Amino acid sequence: MNAEIIAVGTELLLGEIVNTNAQFISQQLALLGIDVYFQTVVGDNPHRLRHVLETARTRSRLIILTGGLGPTMDDITKDIVAELLGRRTFLDEAAVAKMEQMFSRRGTPMVESNKRQAMVIEGAAILPNETGLALGNALLADGTAFILLPGPPREMKPMFEQEVIPWLHGSGLLDESVLHTRKLKFAGIGESKLEDMLRDLIEAQEHTTIATYAKEGEVLVRLATKTADEQQAVQRLAETESAIMSRIGEHLFAAEDISLPEALLELMSERKLTLSAAESCTGGLFAEMITSVPGSSDVFQGGAVTYSNEMKERILGVPHELLEGEQAPGAVSAETAKAMAEGMQDIADTDFSIAITGVAGPGHSERKPVGLVYIAIAEKGRDTQVEELRLAGDRSTIRLRTVNAVMYRLWTRARQYG
Amino acid sequence: MNAEIIAVGTELLLGEIVNTNAQFISQQLALLGIDVYFQTVVGDNPHRLRHVLETARTRSRLIILTGGLGPTMDDITKDIVAELLGRRTFLDEAAVAKMEQMFSRRGTPMVESNKRQAMVIEGAAILPNETGLALGNALLADGTAFILLPGPPREMKPMFEQEVIPWLHGSGLLDESVLHTRKLKFAGIGESKLEDMLRDLIEAQEHTTIATYAKEGEVLVRLATKTADEQQAVQRLAETESAIMSRIGEHLFAAEDISLPEALLELMSERKLTLSAAESCTGGLFAEMITSVPGSSDVFQGGAVTYSNEMKERILGVPHELLEGEQAPGAVSAETAKAMAEGMQDIADTDFSIAITGVAGPGHSERKPVGLVYIAIAEKGRDTQVEELRLAGDRSTIRLRTVNAVMYRLWTRARQYG
Repeated sequence: MNAEIIAVGTELLLGEIVNTNAQFISQQLALLGIDVYFQTVVGDNPHRLRHVLETARTRSRLIILTGGLGPTMDDITKDIVAELLGRRTFLDEAAVAKMEQMFSRRGTPMVESNKRQAMVIEGAAILPNETGLALGNALLADGTAFILLPGPPREMKPMFEQEVIPWLHGSGLLDESVLHTRKLKFAGIGESKLEDMLRDLIEAQEHTTIATYAKEGEVLVRLATKTADEQQAVQRLAETESAIMSRIGEHLFAAEDISLPEALLELMSERKLTLSAAESCTGGLFAEMITSVPGSSDVFQGGAVTYSNEMKERILGVPHELLEGEQAPGAVSAETAKAMAEGMQDIADTDFSIAITGVAGPGHSERKPVGLVYIAIAEKGRDTQVEELRLAGDRSTIRLRTVNAVMYRLWTRARQYG
Repeated sequence: MNAEIIAVGTELLLGEIVNTNAQFISQQLALLGIDVYFQTVVGDNPHRLRHVLETARTRSRLIILTGGLGPTMDDITKDIVAELLGRRTFLDEAAVAKMEQMFSRRGTPMVESNKRQAMVIEGAAILPNETGLALGNALLADGTAFILLPGPPREMKPMFEQEVIPWLHGSGLLDESVLHTRKLKFAGIGESKLEDMLRDLIEAQEHTTIATYAKEGEVLVRLATKTADEQQAVQRLAETESAIMSRIGEHLFAAEDISLPEALLELMSERKLTLSAAESCTGGLFAEMITSVPGSSDVFQGGAVTYSNEMKERILGVPHELLEGEQAPGAVSAETAKAMAEGMQDIADTDFSIAITGVAGPGHSERKPVGLVYIAIAEKGRDTQVEELRLAGDRSTIRLRTVNAVMYRLWTRARQYG
């Protein structure tokens, strides 16, 4: 089946935001075995949106729209799709009631225009929105599916995963018999290194395709094979997986599509290990990524963001001599990283305490170069390990790479527990 | 004049990369006063690229293509545009000679296929590429301009600035009366509320357009007017701005497109105010967002992520009686928020110390509902202020809304300093 993605929003045409929704949806559809042939962006303009939809309809079986579902007069997507299909729209009273409740809980009156977000196209399935007000819609018309999603990625993404994927599976549009997939997640190895190590497998692929998708710090390897024979599928996938594992198996952190923080927390929770963190240059990013996973409180007890030297001394008890003075190694040093981790360990009494100190840039600090970072892991009953990293990238990249490096090391350490 | 941007590349349709080129070019064209009506992505497929070009040609005066200029058989953009216009392509011998020189300097033999990158469409201006091998092309055909640029952003961007802009100015296509814009950023007010308060201005807009763009916690209002008369532009924008300000001026945090954390840090830095943070349910997100701004260390001294009750006691000195026991208000309470903020203040000795404790979900905590959050701001020489929030959304939305609420309150407080 072939699909196209249409983003509606003048802000995209003005270059005020980048169309990450198209990327996300394209990736998701690729995983479902659906080919995306076109991505289009059009403004909040009825005439041009109609024109784009008319073209799309002649060439695609699945049309996914993002944006234009908000409360304002500019938000026209539902009206135009309904008009194109010759259908009415109506207000979903249940959604309005929920909206009214929410506003009253907040103690603010609901503005009338918000009701526009509860509109539904006749015959469409309602896709609830857990993180925002605009309802999504999904419908089939003359064999073509139209899916309408809100523009903000934080609303669109969970909706896609929780609502659109099940709807597509139920729609009868997917050729379910054939596509079998397996997902493997790797860390501690870059995408090009990983591809290099699998190159001959990727090039030789016949019935089983191997695709790699990289995020900062993680690589997803997806195996896919098309066959109606279940047993054959299992065998093909197992063969390819074992060939991959014999080469890069030590980097595998999950045999499903979960993130490194999720895998780390699952592992530590299972083994009843606890964790605390002392951060300087990452400024709370490690704690933030760990605690963004629901249930992280079983493992993560807390941490300190000791940005200034005073805070390193006051909260973590880092000796003043390490931080200041002619002969001092300074805040960005192996010695300070070690003292931070052990200071955190003393306060939190956790199985693992990590520490991070470095220069995220822009501009050096203590005459040390941007990208120089020290990470330490204190572990109960073992010596604290310190490592020096030299990272490339801008401020946010260096921060993210540092956190990923620490998580990967923690994961390999936690794995050694029975 | 109206334009459209076409990106050619199957990797975009697979979601392997995000189309930042479209954003960059859209921004550049907006600055030139050119309206972009469509952005399209199409794969390396002759049939579909031809189809997209045929559609574009009927509706746009300027068509900018990126990608598909490389050395492989997949790179078809020049061939298809030439075919569409009934023109030949030829090899630019000067570009080939330069290429050969470059390879010989590197000491590697030039692969024959590289010559494809030196192809030029008959009648086109050659756009030299300083950072790569593929030549750009620019031409006018029947009043429509076609500009072909390479896909890699580090080649495309300098080429756009150094070659495309001068070519456009020389093409006679530009209406040199320039677009004048003004951007205002608001917080502490939702997009629909804001639009409601400006509704009559938005509806009455004639020569000056008012557009709103919302992100979580922030609304950008963009004013734009087209006129060749500089003074008239200044006057129109000032009039519209003052009408807006008289209604929602107290929510303005910046008269430029910067984020709330950036504005907050700029304000606090200017007024030499310092900050620390004690976080529970936001798990370090406040510290992370603050420290993601370069230079934040002038203001932000550090913080604590006290996820467990023990950590609240040990680091912040929150009394045990507040946290545990039959009669205790518990970790999620106004009392604990206040004690956290004041505990942080004692350690950090900063002008402001904020504290956050609440239930981000999923699942309640201490039998308190998801979305219940207490925020406290301790300020030197003033009583600590505590506020109860009732927020909607999933875990990450509640966390983000909490942090934005604290930042907005901090910003209004910091503003009161001379």
